[in-house]
Amino acid sequence: MPKIDAKRLIGDLRKLAEFGRYETGVHRPCLSDIDIASRRWLVERMTEAGLDAHIDGIGNVIGRARTSGPCLLMGSHTDTQPRGGWLDGAMGVVYGIEVARAFRDDPACKGLGIDVASWADEEGNFGSFCGSRSFIGDFPDAEIDKAVSREDGTPMRQALAKAGVAQVARAQVDPKRYRGYLEAHIEQGGKLETSRKRIGVVTGIVGIYLFRVSFSGQQNHAGTTPMPIRKDAGVALTELCHTIHGRFRQMAGPLTVWTVGQIQLDPNMPSIIPGRAHMLLQIRDPEPDKLDELAAEAKRLAAAADAAGPCRVSIEQSSHTLPTKCHPAFMDAFDKAAEIHAPGSWMRMPSGAGHDAQILAKKLPSAMLFVPSIGGVSHHFSEDTAEGDIALGCQVFADAAAAILRG
Amino acid sequence: MPKIDAKRLIGDLRKLAEFGRYETGVHRPCLSDIDIASRRWLVERMTEAGLDAHIDGIGNVIGRARTSGPCLLMGSHTDTQPRGGWLDGAMGVVYGIEVARAFRDDPACKGLGIDVASWADEEGNFGSFCGSRSFIGDFPDAEIDKAVSREDGTPMRQALAKAGVAQVARAQVDPKRYRGYLEAHIEQGGKLETSRKRIGVVTGIVGIYLFRVSFSGQQNHAGTTPMPIRKDAGVALTELCHTIHGRFRQMAGPLTVWTVGQIQLDPNMPSIIPGRAHMLLQIRDPEPDKLDELAAEAKRLAAAADAAGPCRVSIEQSSHTLPTKCHPAFMDAFDKAAEIHAPGSWMRMPSGAGHDAQILAKKLPSAMLFVPSIGGVSHHFSEDTAEGDIALGCQVFADAAAAILRG
Repeated sequence: MPKIDAKRLIGDLRKLAEFGRYETGVHRPCLSDIDIASRRWLVERMTEAGLDAHIDGIGNVIGRARTSGPCLLMGSHTDTQPRGGWLDGAMGVVYGIEVARAFRDDPACKGLGIDVASWADEEGNFGSFCGSRSFIGDFPDAEIDKAVSREDGTPMRQALAKAGVAQVARAQVDPKRYRGYLEAHIEQGGKLETSRKRIGVVTGIVGIYLFRVSFSGQQNHAGTTPMPIRKDAGVALTELCHTIHGRFRQMAGPLTVWTVGQIQLDPNMPSIIPGRAHMLLQIRDPEPDKLDELAAEAKRLAAAADAAGPCRVSIEQSSHTLPTKCHPAFMDAFDKAAEIHAPGSWMRMPSGAGHDAQILAKKLPSAMLFVPSIGGVSHHFSEDTAEGDIALGCQVFADAAAAILRG
Repeated sequence: MPKIDAKRLIGDLRKLAEFGRYETGVHRPCLSDIDIASRRWLVERMTEAGLDAHIDGIGNVIGRARTSGPCLLMGSHTDTQPRGGWLDGAMGVVYGIEVARAFRDDPACKGLGIDVASWADEEGNFGSFCGSRSFIGDFPDAEIDKAVSREDGTPMRQALAKAGVAQVARAQVDPKRYRGYLEAHIEQGGKLETSRKRIGVVTGIVGIYLFRVSFSGQQNHAGTTPMPIRKDAGVALTELCHTIHGRFRQMAGPLTVWTVGQIQLDPNMPSIIPGRAHMLLQIRDPEPDKLDELAAEAKRLAAAADAAGPCRVSIEQSSHTLPTKCHPAFMDAFDKAAEIHAPGSWMRMPSGAGHDAQILAKKLPSAMLFVPSIGGVSHHFSEDTAEGDIALGCQVFADAAAAILRG
């Protein structure tokens, strides 16, 4: 079996973390100067690993194996959240490079190909999953034309020109080339840690439905407007929150989560009855039926609040991502490799967060592997994973890749 | 009885509204350039009305009668809310000037004194009731030193220097000089209009208790954190709102109003469980006992939420203003004058909004008169009152003043 080099792997991760270092983490928005520098460094590392590497027209770094046998695509993303962690995304990309090197160094892997990708802008500086969507042909030119950086307002076209890739073609997936796609990632939650496991074999990525609920009443003076004639949009909002939380608690499946992460009152002043309000309600579940059931209930409750008055209540779905199932044979390969290197210390689990794998899964059999996040922390510079777990995850990843390519 | 000149009254109001005109209303924050210009114009109008007028060291415009007999103080404020109305405050000041003129022109009023004041900053550009509080000796120098404009951040000291009054003494009330204080104002609500009345004789000004309720949970990823282990500060907030609204509906007196006008989640992002949240709860009632009863219940409910967990909940009273009762003999005088000029078209009513009269009432017998607000609108440039109602109110005000001074 291919043997990964833990020192080389951690060394590359530490070097990559120097690009945009912030405290113990990294600030590296996609297509920022420091992000472009990190992509050029990735091209060098991929080239040294024996791959044909380049940055494509959307900023994806893609390294292709020169082998002619069966091939797997591996990757994740190297852009970060603002003041984010050093491993979120980066680890999956460097795993790919390390596995490619381990394959190159193992005569038993001769002819087996590992392609590696760092997908541009997974974290949403310019849009949602720009790089992986571009790769599967789901990111139209018109969307690039409109995209601007949430960090500094730079148009995406201008950022791509600055990166020197405005004239480079956008790489497109060739499904015939690949057995499938594998992505490793930190868990970003605390399930592995609290379960005392070191490897998570991901069963699927939850679907996410996002709703914007708007409340329209009548703005008025908080001292001179008697209670019976008020149309307080804030009261309508908090009452609907109460109703939704109560119903959802009854209806939730074992893995359902829902969140009202954003609330805005207008004008949000202590002495003014809010005339308008809105909130964002997000629902996540691995089962499409459960998502649809909860979505229907949210709409029913909003309609009932609207009918009851005194405020108008409207609900609209602002985005929806369907759940993704991981490929069963790939999960089996991860199980077996995990049991060899960490017997009894692995578990199957869904991913509550979104990943490029859900995009790739539309075109290729796909699967994911998790390593523990210390304290469940992510999207923060303090995010971390024990070096032993990082190395273990990479070895499991390499073994499973070899098994899949030989299978 | 002194006879007011409706044309002169409305003319002065229209002229004053030119200072900082915005749409059909006025934008005149206290001690802005345009506000200072309007104060200089008020000094002129007061001087023409026979008063000794000046701007004092806090920006109050004060015109003193040269008479030696019994004296009444009248006034309100001429600063406005941002993009506010043309009558809120201004009407009460110009009523004072017009009544002073009517007294001067009526031989039967010889010797009776009308002092007129435009209190600085009633609307809170630099603080709360700065001018009237200064006049009763309740605005320490240290508070002026710290005060800055909410409009543009200008320190109050700097604004006073620009107005040329930094070296002017701050006028202080002489309780021996006055029989009492009268203030006229637009209602700012819709009770007179819906009751088809033209005059409101104010019985008192409601007390206002303001509470800041803070919720502390744990910020986390909205996808990877299972419901049972969440500490969602937003859920804690909306649930407590629901509980408070339910209890307060049962406990409220006939004139109680309460408002959650401000809600803030932190970080207020769709995919992040809010780690912290706060809201402002305001309670108004004319009865101190009812205010205390509701305040105790709010504290009890917050403590119960804190004890129940999973979030910590704390509540602190950030301000409290006790209810003010209007002086009975002054109310009787308003009743009688109103019944003469608008028989059957007046009513007694509390003020749900705060006014300078509640400050003056600490030192002088005080009372207030309301005229209708069209559609109940105030704190908006579309605020208005029928000219006939403006003139009627001023005549009632003048009659009552004469009766009080002769009584």
